[in-house]
Amino acid sequence: MIDYLLRQKERISRSLDEYLRVELRELFESHPFGTDAATRLYDFSSRGKMIRGALVYLGAELYGYQGSDKPTTRLAAVMELLQSFLLIHDDIMDGDTLRRGAPSVFAQYERLGIDRSLAEPRHFGEAMGICAGDVAIFLATGLVAHDDVPVALERRLLRLISTEIARVGLAQMSDVYHGVYPEQVAESEIIDLYRYKTGRYTFSLPLMCGATISAAPERDIETLGRIGEGLGVVFQIKDDYIGLFGQTAAIGKKVGSDVAADKKTLYRTYLFERASASDRDHLATVFGASEPSPEDIAFVTRCMHLYRVVDDVENVLQNYADETRQSIRNDIPDMPENGREMLEQLLEYNLNREA
Amino acid sequence: MIDYLLRQKERISRSLDEYLRVELRELFESHPFGTDAATRLYDFSSRGKMIRGALVYLGAELYGYQGSDKPTTRLAAVMELLQSFLLIHDDIMDGDTLRRGAPSVFAQYERLGIDRSLAEPRHFGEAMGICAGDVAIFLATGLVAHDDVPVALERRLLRLISTEIARVGLAQMSDVYHGVYPEQVAESEIIDLYRYKTGRYTFSLPLMCGATISAAPERDIETLGRIGEGLGVVFQIKDDYIGLFGQTAAIGKKVGSDVAADKKTLYRTYLFERASASDRDHLATVFGASEPSPEDIAFVTRCMHLYRVVDDVENVLQNYADETRQSIRNDIPDMPENGREMLEQLLEYNLNREA
Repeated sequence: MIDYLLRQKERISRSLDEYLRVELRELFESHPFGTDAATRLYDFSSRGKMIRGALVYLGAELYGYQGSDKPTTRLAAVMELLQSFLLIHDDIMDGDTLRRGAPSVFAQYERLGIDRSLAEPRHFGEAMGICAGDVAIFLATGLVAHDDVPVALERRLLRLISTEIARVGLAQMSDVYHGVYPEQVAESEIIDLYRYKTGRYTFSLPLMCGATISAAPERDIETLGRIGEGLGVVFQIKDDYIGLFGQTAAIGKKVGSDVAADKKTLYRTYLFERASASDRDHLATVFGASEPSPEDIAFVTRCMHLYRVVDDVENVLQNYADETRQSIRNDIPDMPENGREMLEQLLEYNLNREA
Repeated sequence: MIDYLLRQKERISRSLDEYLRVELRELFESHPFGTDAATRLYDFSSRGKMIRGALVYLGAELYGYQGSDKPTTRLAAVMELLQSFLLIHDDIMDGDTLRRGAPSVFAQYERLGIDRSLAEPRHFGEAMGICAGDVAIFLATGLVAHDDVPVALERRLLRLISTEIARVGLAQMSDVYHGVYPEQVAESEIIDLYRYKTGRYTFSLPLMCGATISAAPERDIETLGRIGEGLGVVFQIKDDYIGLFGQTAAIGKKVGSDVAADKKTLYRTYLFERASASDRDHLATVFGASEPSPEDIAFVTRCMHLYRVVDDVENVLQNYADETRQSIRNDIPDMPENGREMLEQLLEYNLNREA
């Protein structure tokens, strides 16, 4: 499955390149920072695996799509532009200067500010990053209205995208709040965030867009949305695991950055519930510290095992995976058998990936 | 003209209220910060004069539109949501804590952060403000796909909006850069910014959307776009004047905030070109100062008159007004006479307004 998804990247990249460098060249050239921004957006987008874009093709294939790859490719590029916008803005909010194995976009502009001796280069970088993200959004919506996308599908696609990304923004507000709120976050609220922010956005939206292009029944598209939520919960719990226990080179961002940002993961909730008073006091100084030391991170890791947090979160993960697997098998009987198998493979990938 | 525009506000507000509080209630209620964000967006939007929204009705009326006011009202609400998003993000970039006579949106969230004793309330406020602006965008695009907007026009409207707002974002990058770049900005570059950021966005876009709803000829819609640029240059020069010489209560933001932000206005460019070395040195300490004193602002005002900057910028303003007036009279012969008169009234309003 992952090979199938990764193989789509080339045509999405090519399409994005054509859109940004050829079709929109005049627009960018009429602004001093335009061509530079287009290049940064292209480069930034290209450094991702483009899984969300690839899921548009999968969504269409679930229903045996045999049409031109123009609409799917354009929609895939829309997904990737939206993903870039979200990451660009998120990195400003979280202060993450490293992303996809390179400086994040606001950090690139901060560097530009330093090189040109501008006052307050950090603030300059953040402001330029906000703009770059905003521009990416309207490049994405413009692409929904592209000639390659059947006009008859535009309304449904635009509604899907608008609703789901508005949802991401609202979920991101909770995420920001939890990032600085010193209290525990309840398990149910964390799962809701995973469902809405990762699930509906990363999985439901592109799969639903692809299924829409493939003229899937409206009812199935809704069910796919719910299956996407389950895929997202599984993906995100695994992502938290990798964020805590992975290596910088493999994950493309700094190990411990989730700890530094005090991300309210399920791991963290369980850990603070179970740790002894003295361990909890120590942990409280590490989570949210601006630069946790390697020793601090190692301490967090030790506690995660000591208090059986890793095992129990793994159980939660398996339960969501089971539920989603059942839903794939039973709740979309109109989907071709081959499509259900592909969805199950996607679930297994989310469950077993290591980076 | 201004009375006509201000009269439209009530139905735009009502429509926005219905959209945010009724149609989208379920979406907002499923997120902890959703209903709160909807209320803030509604209140923030309502405090504006809603001129951009009103210009959608005008754009339609230019061509004698007699249809339902549903599509125009929905598009007007789209314009106001986009305006709110832009102001919310701009205020973060400029650090403006006051807007429309009340705390700006990020400042409201900063206050929330202070009230709840969160760490780094300023950064919290900015992050929440970025999210609120992002959400406003997708509420706006969702409204373009609303049942009330004829599906046959959706593609053209979405393209117009996508292109023009992408342009605003690119122009805003230049604005941000000039805000911290210590050098003079050439007159031509400033005029380009006014043309793209204020002109095409504030005037061209809503007028073009309205004319599209009224089925105006494609060629006229393009010409309207160029006329909007002229209207914008006139509006923006006047806006700079008001920002420099108006009163806090009348303009809804702090007097001197454009000086503090070191906004690269035409006034500033002329002033620094002409001031004596010693006056220039003094001026350089005032422009970009975090909190210029009333005496500093008074000194800026005196120099503006002393060096005949006010008079000469006024001449530039009149030249653009003349050119735009000629274009209204000669370049859109297919527009009904009544429509051309309304456009001219709009120009005269931009030229003569005092707040």
